[in-house]
Amino acid sequence: MEMPLSLSKRGAKSMTRIEAEKIYRSTVKRLLAFVYVNFLTSWDTETEAPAGAMELEGRQFSTLAEIEYEIQTAPEFCEAVEQLYEERESLDPVLKHEIQEQHKEIDKMKRIPKEEFAAYRELLAKAYPAYVDAKQNNKYEDFAPVLEKIVEYNRRLMGWLEKEDRKGYDVLLDMYEPGSTQKEYDEFFDLLKKEIVPLAQQVDKIDLPYDFGFGELEYDVERQKQFCEYMRDVMCVDRNYSIMMESEHPFTTGFGTDDIRITNHYYPNAFVSSIFSAIHESGHGLYMAQCDKALNDTLSGDGASMAMHESQSRFYENMIGRSPAFWEAHYGKLKETFPEQLKGVSEEAFVHFINQAKFSFIRTEADELTYPLHIMLRYDIEKKLMEGDLHVNELPSYWNSLFKEYFGLVPETDSDGVLQDVHWASGDFGYFPTYALGSAYAAQFYHKMSSDFDIDQALRSGTTEEINRWLKEKVHRFGASKYPKEILEYATGETFNPRYYVDYLTEKYTKLYKL
Amino acid sequence: MEMPLSLSKRGAKSMTRIEAEKIYRSTVKRLLAFVYVNFLTSWDTETEAPAGAMELEGRQFSTLAEIEYEIQTAPEFCEAVEQLYEERESLDPVLKHEIQEQHKEIDKMKRIPKEEFAAYRELLAKAYPAYVDAKQNNKYEDFAPVLEKIVEYNRRLMGWLEKEDRKGYDVLLDMYEPGSTQKEYDEFFDLLKKEIVPLAQQVDKIDLPYDFGFGELEYDVERQKQFCEYMRDVMCVDRNYSIMMESEHPFTTGFGTDDIRITNHYYPNAFVSSIFSAIHESGHGLYMAQCDKALNDTLSGDGASMAMHESQSRFYENMIGRSPAFWEAHYGKLKETFPEQLKGVSEEAFVHFINQAKFSFIRTEADELTYPLHIMLRYDIEKKLMEGDLHVNELPSYWNSLFKEYFGLVPETDSDGVLQDVHWASGDFGYFPTYALGSAYAAQFYHKMSSDFDIDQALRSGTTEEINRWLKEKVHRFGASKYPKEILEYATGETFNPRYYVDYLTEKYTKLYKL
Repeated sequence: MEMPLSLSKRGAKSMTRIEAEKIYRSTVKRLLAFVYVNFLTSWDTETEAPAGAMELEGRQFSTLAEIEYEIQTAPEFCEAVEQLYEERESLDPVLKHEIQEQHKEIDKMKRIPKEEFAAYRELLAKAYPAYVDAKQNNKYEDFAPVLEKIVEYNRRLMGWLEKEDRKGYDVLLDMYEPGSTQKEYDEFFDLLKKEIVPLAQQVDKIDLPYDFGFGELEYDVERQKQFCEYMRDVMCVDRNYSIMMESEHPFTTGFGTDDIRITNHYYPNAFVSSIFSAIHESGHGLYMAQCDKALNDTLSGDGASMAMHESQSRFYENMIGRSPAFWEAHYGKLKETFPEQLKGVSEEAFVHFINQAKFSFIRTEADELTYPLHIMLRYDIEKKLMEGDLHVNELPSYWNSLFKEYFGLVPETDSDGVLQDVHWASGDFGYFPTYALGSAYAAQFYHKMSSDFDIDQALRSGTTEEINRWLKEKVHRFGASKYPKEILEYATGETFNPRYYVDYLTEKYTKLYKL
Repeated sequence: MEMPLSLSKRGAKSMTRIEAEKIYRSTVKRLLAFVYVNFLTSWDTETEAPAGAMELEGRQFSTLAEIEYEIQTAPEFCEAVEQLYEERESLDPVLKHEIQEQHKEIDKMKRIPKEEFAAYRELLAKAYPAYVDAKQNNKYEDFAPVLEKIVEYNRRLMGWLEKEDRKGYDVLLDMYEPGSTQKEYDEFFDLLKKEIVPLAQQVDKIDLPYDFGFGELEYDVERQKQFCEYMRDVMCVDRNYSIMMESEHPFTTGFGTDDIRITNHYYPNAFVSSIFSAIHESGHGLYMAQCDKALNDTLSGDGASMAMHESQSRFYENMIGRSPAFWEAHYGKLKETFPEQLKGVSEEAFVHFINQAKFSFIRTEADELTYPLHIMLRYDIEKKLMEGDLHVNELPSYWNSLFKEYFGLVPETDSDGVLQDVHWASGDFGYFPTYALGSAYAAQFYHKMSSDFDIDQALRSGTTEEINRWLKEKVHRFGASKYPKEILEYATGETFNPRYYVDYLTEKYTKLYKL
């Protein structure tokens, strides 16, 4: 195509918009192929690859990352993005959003000094085994010097990436949840502190008047698998586009809308664990599967953000999967699967069993009510660390005193306290708060959905089809082609409001525990 | 091709040897990463990927192949290979061999007209479904026009690639088994025709005097798996570097020495099938695992050729796995695993059961004795097709008349005859003969090994450790860093001699069938 004279007059441009789009799309095609490779290699490493292959295959990962980096940072590609960024207002919305994100990425890479970035990657590679050792031996002091360096890097990172309207911890928060700010999180966690901490403290003291002995019986693993496959069908996760396997910790990954991979873990003596993992992970899976198929050829597939992904998995797990209406439809099947173990166990007892709340030390094992308190604590600490108000050496004692304040308990070891999560050892500051935000998004969706149709009635039909349809239309189909806050507003008609989450928890636990 | 230019270039080297080696090694590093990617994607496709993901992921495969092709054909890389090829006599032996092979590849790519190559790839893509349809509906005539085009391309290919010392069908044979010629194969198959055809015809008429009813009983699949895992341990296939899974057809793949992946298929009513697949595939696996680890960073890992790989799998499956001495050590364990089904079945009866020979229509189901006859027939046909002495339309009748001559039988349908294998539909002319050659190599190794130590005695120890050690030292460690014929000569002290194979079969079946 010939370039119109009027455009070529702008002179400085070395690339036409058509050329820029062509270069952009052919690069995206290659980057997508690497998205696929990264998905597959990490899936394989976590599920099947023999342990002894790690070293040799790790070398291939580095080489592949090198090639991907070259594609991503090719001057021609950066120029194309720059060009399209300048003309972003005239692009179609999906491309515009993608260009903004790519522009941000390129800008970020430019701002981080290369040597610093390389040194940090090396630091992180050493940090992981150091963290694992420290946790195993309950020796925080061995890990502290490494963590200090990680914290320092992240504090410098905030400086390199800061802009007029986004400074300090906000810089990191935005990396994990685009558009989120400390101000917003402060309001959110203040509300939780005011209303959910006292609620949880009240609930923690109560023992529900049921015999929960059935929870400790042995449940055949093969039958657990059968029931989880049944759950997958109840949630309409299409088997032609998904698989469900086993791994140490349940997780979901995949590629585009057409390859959804869910893993689960089966404990003979804790049978509900696999059921709720299946529902939780299927929630992540549905979010991927129900994305608009046209986004499969863009970088805007998958979810809009960490919090948005978590909102979907927790929506299905907690609002749907732990609701009485859900078990009205499926408790019969569960009893059929485990007739001996559930003999004489009423539906009511079962529903109370799966909704018990009790304070405990480990975040990943926490129930729906006490979970956000674990996050609140981590948010408080991260903020102080990043602001320079807390030193890495003071972390264990500060952790324990906060824990005492919220939970009324003190962990006996740092391994069960400040060392329990890998996130900080991986340099992930700003990640934790997205977990709680996800639950709050879920509650806001739930509130709006309830005003659109009778959710309980829909659940009694036996599948989540109607719920899936609503979420597809309001959330899933957009993938990452919009910012999470835009999707939230589109779906619920209002901006983020943590009130729905607090009300949801208060109402649910007041009823369950007859407060 | 610009002859004068490349000549003048040679005069004024544009690249030093050190530069050439550097470029060569950094490109190899990248090509290796793609070897890994190709291994993993095809493994995934054949074992786990959901069916619905194929289209979307197929698009990523194409993009990845494009990137790989660019790396492989980068002018700088080709120039480096050219430079090193000129100085090949002064390179270390592994690099010299690799450079020769790479030079051959680049030369091949130059000789095949680009448009022809592209059109052929498209033709093959359409040929596969056409072949599957024709086989399913027993309609050879529907597939014939496509096959004719494939044959024509391969005949043109022989022309493009021919050299002074290698013309016609030899060109194709060399692609599958470097160094092999029609002359060599003719002598081999003539010997088989003269000695093995009458032997097989004699054996086919005899029914062994045992009750083989136990072979048709039902054998629990989980127990079959247990026994196959036991076989893996007997063969010392290290679990830290290997996995054994399930797939429709058993196969082996992997990456380097450290990631060996074997699949198996379990039939409740044909229990020995999974046992011999486990042994056969573990043979392939050991060949990979026992390669010199230093070759992991070169393009000379894995096996030296198709025939050499097949020689290893068949060596373990037939010479070792079907030998009386092997079952002296393991029949007790097998009886323990299946006490009911094998009650009253003597070791002698079992050994005869697994060594029965009978004519049948399908190559992949044929026994050790009649298998090479299936190959002989295909070799005869391929040769005639490539020489232009047989037209694609005459194939079915020619197939049936040859089949009648060797096997005394005529297949009832083309699906059980000329259409049974996918090879020709995939354009693989020259591949089939390597299967028989592999068995013949195996027999030559067996003969030499027997003169080095008492194989039966070694097997009675319970593992194949001593045998593995011999094969590692004589064959496996070289990977693909030498030509197959060089390895054969190094290991056995003489050039290829099909006499060992014929003698091995004659002696074995004379004894088993008391001829």
